[in-house]
Amino acid sequence: MMPSTRRATNATILILALAFSSLALAADPLPSWNEGATKQSIIKFVEEVTREGSPDFVPVPERIATFDNDGTLWAEQPIYTQLFFLIDRVKAMAPQHPEWKTQEPFASVLKGDLQGVTAGGEAGVVALLTATHTGMTTDEFSRIVSNWITTAKHPKTGQPFTAMVYQPMLELLDYLRANGFKTYIVSGGGIDFMRPWSERVYGIPPEQVIGTSGGLKYEMVDGRPALIKLPSLVLNDDKEGKPVGIQRHIGRRPIAAFGNSDGDLQMLQWTCSSSGLRLCVFVHHTDSKREWAYDRGSHIGALDKGLDEAKLRDWTVVDMEKDWNRVFPFQ
Amino acid sequence: MMPSTRRATNATILILALAFSSLALAADPLPSWNEGATKQSIIKFVEEVTREGSPDFVPVPERIATFDNDGTLWAEQPIYTQLFFLIDRVKAMAPQHPEWKTQEPFASVLKGDLQGVTAGGEAGVVALLTATHTGMTTDEFSRIVSNWITTAKHPKTGQPFTAMVYQPMLELLDYLRANGFKTYIVSGGGIDFMRPWSERVYGIPPEQVIGTSGGLKYEMVDGRPALIKLPSLVLNDDKEGKPVGIQRHIGRRPIAAFGNSDGDLQMLQWTCSSSGLRLCVFVHHTDSKREWAYDRGSHIGALDKGLDEAKLRDWTVVDMEKDWNRVFPFQ
Repeated sequence: MMPSTRRATNATILILALAFSSLALAADPLPSWNEGATKQSIIKFVEEVTREGSPDFVPVPERIATFDNDGTLWAEQPIYTQLFFLIDRVKAMAPQHPEWKTQEPFASVLKGDLQGVTAGGEAGVVALLTATHTGMTTDEFSRIVSNWITTAKHPKTGQPFTAMVYQPMLELLDYLRANGFKTYIVSGGGIDFMRPWSERVYGIPPEQVIGTSGGLKYEMVDGRPALIKLPSLVLNDDKEGKPVGIQRHIGRRPIAAFGNSDGDLQMLQWTCSSSGLRLCVFVHHTDSKREWAYDRGSHIGALDKGLDEAKLRDWTVVDMEKDWNRVFPFQ
Repeated sequence: MMPSTRRATNATILILALAFSSLALAADPLPSWNEGATKQSIIKFVEEVTREGSPDFVPVPERIATFDNDGTLWAEQPIYTQLFFLIDRVKAMAPQHPEWKTQEPFASVLKGDLQGVTAGGEAGVVALLTATHTGMTTDEFSRIVSNWITTAKHPKTGQPFTAMVYQPMLELLDYLRANGFKTYIVSGGGIDFMRPWSERVYGIPPEQVIGTSGGLKYEMVDGRPALIKLPSLVLNDDKEGKPVGIQRHIGRRPIAAFGNSDGDLQMLQWTCSSSGLRLCVFVHHTDSKREWAYDRGSHIGALDKGLDEAKLRDWTVVDMEKDWNRVFPFQ
């Protein structure tokens, strides 16, 4: 009986293994996405570019996917998260700067008067960024960001900002990576503000984060080499700056790009104008209950020209209210 | 007899498998490196940072190794390869620029008078770079470089420039990658000049190539988006610029760095001044027969301060004549 029992056991193991692999194949890689045209456009694209022998097959090294951050991977309302960080930094640094009590735009920030800040225009914003984002080493700034992001809370939900990420987009990042894609962030936000937590939150390592970048100076500090953050601008990674940042950092054109505002339009144009099957997606903020509803007239993340061009070019537009059965992981 | 025969066969297979895996373990990953202190310093470093439980263990995502290109991965004598490219471009473009026959520095280039070119100083070099490296799209420049590099030959050896790479360094790149390292080029050479062939020649994809970079402008050309190469300088990826380029592109500090000249000194300082076991290596050109012998006084690739600092800090210095039993793959 022994040999035949052993054979039966082996057969059972084989059947179980096959059953499990079928289950794995059948499992939905995007459970927070409702069935429909949007989800299908993503899955069909991934299947076509990854299937050997497909006319649209793309080799693994060329499977580059780029994602905007604010409004695409995490919430950007009522103001950009980096602005909350900036405001908190001004408050934390104020005791060392008694002159800020009367000096704009710092005085308005300390009084919580955002309109007063806006009155200072671009020069005011540059002054705030210079005071809070430059003049320290890259290591120091990274520690400041890491400390802030683990304690700060979103004013509306009371959640940490790193919980204000979109569950369907986290699933999409995983799904693309499981299919051989390299996933990048391409954001108008500061590169040094995102890198300390992008790997933990999105699974995107620092070398795959592209963002607005300032000058750096190599010098000796207390006998050890350091990189000092300077006020000069090296890359404004927004609008026309996004394809520039992509070329500078990656050196090849993405085959898929994801954004939510007109600031992402050029990245999508650059991605979807090359030959071959391409995927360009706008996340459209349509859900006033679970998130925020805004597009053409918004003061932050306006999607106007982008909506028109998406229609013209048959790009995918995600209707957050209809296409997502879950928005945030904590919901 | 059947069961015991089967058992014997299984045992034989097991023994064979074990024997093969021992052979694999015993196979020398760096066959072109002679046994000795240099080779041992590299192997010991890799073993210590990759062995689980080692006090110097480094997780895979942090295993970043950066390599200079000219003089470290391929030959840089009698002049940088990119200068040969530039000269050939001036000659190829000359029919469209009859004024170059009398206009410096172009006239000297066309006459093959390198001293005349040098007389023009930095302004002359900028004029040559502007004429040959800017004003076209990134795609066009990439095609120009790809065409040139497949046909141009080194004047001394008659070999393609991509054959003038150091066999021991190719083995080192493979060895590091097999041990979970991400390998980067960090070169004073042009980023757009290296990216078209770095993957094929070194196994280093374009997104892991950092180099001297110029401005880019996103615009529509014949109704399609394009990136135009501008004459402005965005990163001078040499000396103090190397740690800057590393931070900008990678966002974390390497744990191993390889160079051959004082232009790489700051990259090695930046790498080896962080805490933990680090590896800093200078390739010292000591082999006048198989390659070239030069260091402190050389007009290209001078290694002067670097030699002193290597001694002071106990960095590894590769003696090409003694440490390498093979220099180029074709030898």
